[in-house]
Order: sequence, then structure tokens, then C-alpha cells
Amino acid sequence: MSEKKTLLGRPVETEGVPNLYEGSPVVKWKAPEPGIDNLGLHSWDTFAIPGVGEFDVEFDGYVRVVRSPATDEEWAGAEVYTNLIEMHMTGASEELGTITVTLNPEYLSAGQIRTPFDPYAGEGPAAKACRMAVGCMFDIPKLGTRLFNREPVILTIDDVRSIPPAGAPGKGQIYRMLPLYDVRTPWDQPTAYLTSLKFNMGGYLPPERFQ
Amino acid sequence: MSEKKTLLGRPVETEGVPNLYEGSPVVKWKAPEPGIDNLGLHSWDTFAIPGVGEFDVEFDGYVRVVRSPATDEEWAGAEVYTNLIEMHMTGASEELGTITVTLNPEYLSAGQIRTPFDPYAGEGPAAKACRMAVGCMFDIPKLGTRLFNREPVILTIDDVRSIPPAGAPGKGQIYRMLPLYDVRTPWDQPTAYLTSLKFNMGGYLPPERFQ
Repeated sequence: MSEKKTLLGRPVETEGVPNLYEGSPVVKWKAPEPGIDNLGLHSWDTFAIPGVGEFDVEFDGYVRVVRSPATDEEWAGAEVYTNLIEMHMTGASEELGTITVTLNPEYLSAGQIRTPFDPYAGEGPAAKACRMAVGCMFDIPKLGTRLFNREPVILTIDDVRSIPPAGAPGKGQIYRMLPLYDVRTPWDQPTAYLTSLKFNMGGYLPPERFQ
Repeated sequence: MSEKKTLLGRPVETEGVPNLYEGSPVVKWKAPEPGIDNLGLHSWDTFAIPGVGEFDVEFDGYVRVVRSPATDEEWAGAEVYTNLIEMHMTGASEELGTITVTLNPEYLSAGQIRTPFDPYAGEGPAAKACRMAVGCMFDIPKLGTRLFNREPVILTIDDVRSIPPAGAPGKGQIYRMLPLYDVRTPWDQPTAYLTSLKFNMGGYLPPERFQ
């Protein structure tokens, strides 16, 4: 079902699932057919490097997310499972240079959308909660290093009213510091830590952004 | 260095490291020699089972944690790496029966103790932050099921003034719901969710508790 070494969630079938690009509808309170969402993503990350400092870096890029069939036709009971099949984010800071974030191929980055057990207050249909556990690679050529995380980065979006939650703000649920290891010295102590992550899901992008 | 399929942190050498039991000193503001801490643990977990309900279960048991040498002799700069090499917790609820929690052998459950980048306010030496990423097995015979987590449970202790932080309260950093999968049907949707976890680290236990 999946050839990845480590699964961070439930595998989702990709075969035969259509790619969705700019112009695809995003409908509120409706569980859609399976699709591969090709979406923009913008994030604000903070890295702490022991003995060096803390660095805020703004990233922009895209993700490709495959969605499972919903478990129910009705919004209320629908659960949808997701795999992050591609990510490409770039950011730059004066001190760290250009940073490129992609998926760690050893991990299946995966998540789901469902009604939380502690639902959001409010009238009308119940909003859902979205979570995705992600294994990343952080390429930092200026430091001559590629970093990876062993604890997944848990990306969450609250108050989800459409699938995909295009345009919604989200947060990386990082408690104080998430260790990042150097691929060349994976047994050593962490080279850096991710201490904060906020993001905005973008909308559907045109196909030429993915070539 | 480790034969585990998935490392949730940095591996720590266990060979030749002495076991520490009841009577071992716990010294404040001091980074100790490497040891295997044999400690009590008490926790309060909440499980949500879709379509069934939410269940609070209180657990008691023990953990065995191997500690690395500190990276510095002085408390201020000392970092210590830890691996959770054994865990045995039991709890009971009327609806779910007896639940036994142990380590998932496929994962190296691992963590560290270091001064946080956003230090705790206060005078005197800086308290440290402790985190441990854990892969668990939840045995629930009454439901005929064994559950496991793919997102690690991140156990954290703040305001750490001694190593080990014996007697300290801690928390599982769970955002809304952490999916638990059935070992018999690992590709299916989660059978249950862990929605809350609080714990108290106990002190050193006598050797007979580990036989």
C-alpha cells in the first residue's frame, strides 16, 4: 500500500485520481470527490540555531495533496484522508541564505479532515479540523547543510468549512522546539530547531507552476 | 546505532550504562553521569472512539529511560539525550476494561533535555525543557484490539530543575486528536483517538518492580 519507510498517517490511493488546478471549484459544507489538490502555500517559520541565533524566514511555494473519498456523502459525518505527495517551498534570510523545503522521501506525510470531538461553537453546519503530519528536508546551501525532522511537523487548520481549506490560515503545532538533524551526521545532536511555524493555505494554482 | 525502523529522536548508548533504582540521588541544577532511570509514572488519558464516546482512563506504571552524557559539565549549557527503553502502564475503565500501554517496538522513542530558546522567567539557574517523542501500543482486550499511534505522542515537562525530573508534572502535547490505528487493520481509518494526556513523573522505584 505504501513503500515509505515510515507512515505518518493513513495511506491514500493516488492512482487514477484527477489533478485539480486553478479554476476548480471550492464548495462550502460539501465533501468532494477524490482529487489531487495543487495548491499554493505561504509560511512563516522561525529557526533557532544553538550558539548562532534565531531566524525568521518567510516561505512561498506549493503543495500537492491527494484526498481520499469521503467516508460519508453528508458533510456532518464525512472524514477525508490526505497524503502530501509533493511540497516545494523557498525562503531566504540574510544570515541563512536561500532555504528550500521539500518532503523527506522516507516518510509518508499524511493527515485527515474530520469533525473534532470538541467542536467549534457556532450555528449552522459543524466546521471540521484538518491535520497533516509532515517529514521535511530543509536545504540550506549557505550553511552547507540539509536538515530533517524526526518528530513530524503537525500542520493544523481549524474551522474548516470547505475541502480543500483553500485560503485558510494554519499553524504548525510546535511545542517550544522541534529538533532538526543534519543528514550527514544523523546520530549527532540537532543542528537547529524549528521553534514556530504559521502558514496560509493558498488556492488552486495553474498547471504550469508544477512543471 | 539503532535497529529500530523509525527513530523519533537521537539514539543513546545503553551498553554499560548503570541502572538507577530507589535510593539514587536526584540533585538540583546538576547534570548527572549517564544512567538508566527506573521511574514510576502516572497518567490521565482521554480516548475518543468515534460513534462510541469519550473515556477518561487513569494509568499507573513505570518507565526505563537511558540518559546520554551531558554535553557540558555546567548545568547552564548541558544538554542530555534520552531514549525510552521500556514502558508499562495499566489503567481500567468500566466501558473499555483494562488497558495496557507499552512501547511500539518499531519505534525508537526518544527525547532530550535542554534550556529552551524562550526560557522560563525567574531568578537563579535557568530551568530546562524536557521532551520525549513516543510510539505506543495500547492493548484493549475487552474490545479485542491493539492500537498504535503514527504521529508520536510528544510528552513534555517544563521548568525542569533536576535530571531526571522526578516528581514533575507533564503533558502530552496533543492538538485536538491524535489518531490511533488498529494493528490488524493498519490501512483503515483510525479506530480511536487520544484527545488528552497529562502525567506525573514519579521517583526512582525499587528493582523488584521491574522483574
